[in-house]
Amino acid sequence: MLQDLCVANPAAGIKVNGFACKPDTNITAEDFFFAGLAKPGIVNSSVGSLVTGANVEKIPGLNTLGVSLGRIDYKPGGLNPPHTHPRATEIVFVLEGELDVGFITTANKLFSKSIKQGEIFVFPRGLVHFQKNNGDKPASVLSAFNSQLPGTQSLAMTLFAATPEVPDDVLTKAFQVGTKEVDKIKSRLAPKKS
Amino acid sequence: MLQDLCVANPAAGIKVNGFACKPDTNITAEDFFFAGLAKPGIVNSSVGSLVTGANVEKIPGLNTLGVSLGRIDYKPGGLNPPHTHPRATEIVFVLEGELDVGFITTANKLFSKSIKQGEIFVFPRGLVHFQKNNGDKPASVLSAFNSQLPGTQSLAMTLFAATPEVPDDVLTKAFQVGTKEVDKIKSRLAPKKS
Amino acid sequence: MLQDLCVANPAAGIKVNGFACKPDTNITAEDFFFAGLAKPGIVNSSVGSLVTGANVEKIPGLNTLGVSLGRIDYKPGGLNPPHTHPRATEIVFVLEGELDVGFITTANKLFSKSIKQGEIFVFPRGLVHFQKNNGDKPASVLSAFNSQLPGTQSLAMTLFAATPEVPDDVLTKAFQVGTKEVDKIKSRLAPKKS
Amino acid sequence: MLQDLCVANPAAGIKVNGFACKPDTNITAEDFFFAGLAKPGIVNSSVGSLVTGANVEKIPGLNTLGVSLGRIDYKPGGLNPPHTHPRATEIVFVLEGELDVGFITTANKLFSKSIKQGEIFVFPRGLVHFQKNNGDKPASVLSAFNSQLPGTQSLAMTLFAATPEVPDDVLTKAFQVGTKEVDKIKSRLAPKKS
Amino acid sequence: MLQDLCVANPAAGIKVNGFACKPDTNITAEDFFFAGLAKPGIVNSSVGSLVTGANVEKIPGLNTLGVSLGRIDYKPGGLNPPHTHPRATEIVFVLEGELDVGFITTANKLFSKSIKQGEIFVFPRGLVHFQKNNGDKPASVLSAFNSQLPGTQSLAMTLFAATPEVPDDVLTKAFQVGTKEVDKIKSRLAPKKS
Amino acid sequence: MLQDLCVANPAAGIKVNGFACKPDTNITAEDFFFAGLAKPGIVNSSVGSLVTGANVEKIPGLNTLGVSLGRIDYKPGGLNPPHTHPRATEIVFVLEGELDVGFITTANKLFSKSIKQGEIFVFPRGLVHFQKNNGDKPASVLSAFNSQLPGTQSLAMTLFAATPEVPDDVLTKAFQVGTKEVDKIKSRLAPKKS
Repeated sequence: MLQDLCVANPAAGIKVNGFACKPDTNITAEDFFFAGLAKPGIVNSSVGSLVTGANVEKIPGLNTLGVSLGRIDYKPGGLNPPHTHPRATEIVFVLEGELDVGFITTANKLFSKSIKQGEIFVFPRGLVHFQKNNGDKPASVLSAFNSQLPGTQSLAMTLFAATPEVPDDVLTKAFQVGTKEVDKIKSRLAPKKS
Repeated sequence: MLQDLCVANPAAGIKVNGFACKPDTNITAEDFFFAGLAKPGIVNSSVGSLVTGANVEKIPGLNTLGVSLGRIDYKPGGLNPPHTHPRATEIVFVLEGELDVGFITTANKLFSKSIKQGEIFVFPRGLVHFQKNNGDKPASVLSAFNSQLPGTQSLAMTLFAATPEVPDDVLTKAFQVGTKEVDKIKSRLAPKKS
Repeated sequence: MLQDLCVANPAAGIKVNGFACKPDTNITAEDFFFAGLAKPGIVNSSVGSLVTGANVEKIPGLNTLGVSLGRIDYKPGGLNPPHTHPRATEIVFVLEGELDVGFITTANKLFSKSIKQGEIFVFPRGLVHFQKNNGDKPASVLSAFNSQLPGTQSLAMTLFAATPEVPDDVLTKAFQVGTKEVDKIKSRLAPKKS
Repeated sequence: MLQDLCVANPAAGIKVNGFACKPDTNITAEDFFFAGLAKPGIVNSSVGSLVTGANVEKIPGLNTLGVSLGRIDYKPGGLNPPHTHPRATEIVFVLEGELDVGFITTANKLFSKSIKQGEIFVFPRGLVHFQKNNGDKPASVLSAFNSQLPGTQSLAMTLFAATPEVPDDVLTKAFQVGTKEVDKIKSRLAPKKS
Repeated sequence: MLQDLCVANPAAGIKVNGFACKPDTNITAEDFFFAGLAKPGIVNSSVGSLVTGANVEKIPGLNTLGVSLGRIDYKPGGLNPPHTHPRATEIVFVLEGELDVGFITTANKLFSKSIKQGEIFVFPRGLVHFQKNNGDKPASVLSAFNSQLPGTQSLAMTLFAATPEVPDDVLTKAFQVGTKEVDKIKSRLAPKKS
Repeated sequence: MLQDLCVANPAAGIKVNGFACKPDTNITAEDFFFAGLAKPGIVNSSVGSLVTGANVEKIPGLNTLGVSLGRIDYKPGGLNPPHTHPRATEIVFVLEGELDVGFITTANKLFSKSIKQGEIFVFPRGLVHFQKNNGDKPASVLSAFNSQLPGTQSLAMTLFAATPEVPDDVLTKAFQVGTKEVDKIKSRLAPKKS
């Protein structure tokens, strides 16, 4: 961060680490504003959750500022499946409902807890974590990240639904099961990509 | 951040940049949890707002992780007066009500906007900013920071209610008014410290 | 800093975090040189001080290098009014005269001292600080910053002379005085902008 | 990095971000030396690979220096299963044999390639990646990381063999299969922990 | 590092800190691959060693990723003469042969050791270091750096063979010898530049 | 930098990256003050210059703040011999006299210039640089660094006067001269250490 403001300029015609900046004279308060997290999203994924980002791609004023938000909505039984953020720690605040949440360290130890409306939980940078709505009502959280573009790597999709495919022999050996089980998971997850 | 977890250990008997860490075997999920933002605080300050932090002092697991939250409650007419965070950008999400918010750049330009429930606004790192509830109902926001301990420097209090006092001649010259006006402000703000 | 030199190229036609770089073949020793702090500036501001920067805007070779200088000249009675640098710690060396200096922490504690020719004082990153020449002779300091463009937010001007104006009700509530006092300060500071 | 050397002192009796430092007078060249990667390790894991680290836990002189090495040995058919390093980019150099390697981006795109003795491949920070020896001879690589303690999160083990267990309903929903398949994988991976 | 990948695009027509990025659609696995360290280079320098870099100039995918490799080959008696890397710590792994290696701290203390095939030694960031093959067989090492472009400043060449020349009076005073000795060294080193 | 102030506490009994901090209640304005650069030092070195640091070892308040100063005094003909700072860029302001200054890039290109009272020159991070007083009057500069402890590696002393000694065969090969010349330089520089 080398000046007060470097509002992202996707029209700059040049790609740099982060984004090039708009001319100062074009900056307005709108560049620092976003209304897209105000309402629950419509959850129609197979896992029963929906993530809506409020990062530099939505709020150009966040460029170089190192922070962003997101909102996650969960149906009853909905899961935000195990994933990592390669570039950020996440801290969630429950807007509504109750969730079972957890993260796993590199020493393979799970830290988990149930959290309800108004409560907070931290998922340290880079570690695998998840949230599940085991209640019978919808739930939602607000997430904060110390990156303007934290990235998300959802592990089941990463392993079983990448393009091109991760080879079967990598997956059978990693999970110590046969091609049948691997292909079953692939078939279940693959259509979710389109 | 040089390991998965370095949970703050205020009992370590040593003060370092940030905090020393607890032994790994003492870490539990509670270290990453906080319930203190769940309910509105009781606002009885002269400015009509109350800030409640959810930083490393409250959530020891945040140590070295570079992110934190806070909650601000506003009475009708309440103000979170102009202040800076020396170590963080802030991004707010309106939990309830409507607020007039703004920040001023080092080029002395004000960017301001009215935001209501579910909307987001960004206050870039280190710049003076404020929020005011000009509605007739209470309001509240959730704030996120890219620091586990962002620090807050409330400017009227910093200038007119520090201990020891900032000398009168500094303030009269800075604000280009007389000792009478300066002492009036000092007397109004000073009691608020105790 | 990802190469030896990335000399700022304001003519690059693209705005990035910091500055784009000149072609290597155009770099000369002049890019690392500046003569503009050699002599006292002419102080004719209402506060009796003048700040002259020697940052990346004046010395293009400083781009990506994370350091800069400045010179401040003070008339007798002159004040460098309370301000912050959002992106740097400052360390001053007194070239001439004697100054009363101080900074205020986020715990609202003032640390202050008188310093004279050849002496040094530190103003930690982001904290409000000031210098005043209470002597009867001119004074001057050399300032060093750990940023090539530290930025300066002079608080009285930020609060009372921004464009557009910070609303009166924000200022009356923050300083706990009436519109009369606020408008008086605004009128005193406003003309200094032009 | 705030001095020339801060050699890790595990006996310091205090835990900090990274490690406390040895007294300077106790530092020797041995603190910067390690012989443990000289020979292939004995690979007897179910996946057919063995990772040997040469990080700050083995080379105390690496503390604060932000770099480390590792060696991976692969039997014919051996796999270093999909995993992430939360704190580092990895770059591998093939010492012997031939490997099929790949990483998947957060856009779920696989980049893969076969590499053989003397060739290099890069796995960007935080992204899921793997290497598999599809040849009929042993293989080995030297890995370099831009962290003195990069951490490794092996995903199948993280998801199916953590302690306590990741709940079945998280895994069945994430992988869209039944409890039978999940328990099968758990039973296959669990014994590998002891 | 503000996105998964920012593959260097030397054809971007703009010079920034590091490199501008290629369009995502043009990125391939080849951008993360390099074969140029597979074989020993032909050593015909006067010092008997050859350094081959595998940094962002060779592997465009390394841009923003903060790591790189290099290979050094040594004839019997060959020396990689005393030098610094302004932007990285180095860690070497001996591929073949035996070397006497050392670094000197700012307290002017030499840490040195003999290392042989498969052994590792660390050269802390910015400090002067060297390697010499005192054996009667060729030697080679693989070097890892925590920078995608560490830079190398070979000290004898820097002092005695720069363009334009470092003035004789700087060198005679620094080394406390006469112009004769300085000019002798200059003449010996100068032709090596072309 | 994770709090307002972390004043160095050399008496902490623990060594960490940087320094452990004093208890807040013991901090005074003196911790941010230094008078030791006010007067020229007495120059009696063989090279005719004297460097006086004003870093965290002298000003404990600088700990974690990332900036420091120094003063260099030069006799007529005095040289601050070629050296590097492993952890900082340097920017000098001439207090008195006139100096010939220069730095050399990793591409072995010298950038040099004469600077006089009040003028500024920049020496980029990690690169070899020097200053020489070719005038017939004393000179002095104030130096600023973007590190609280930049470190200095004076190259002639590093190479020819380290303890233990850098082996003769390293130096003869690096400088392409005989043992006689190397030993002559060693004998000239060695006594200067005591």
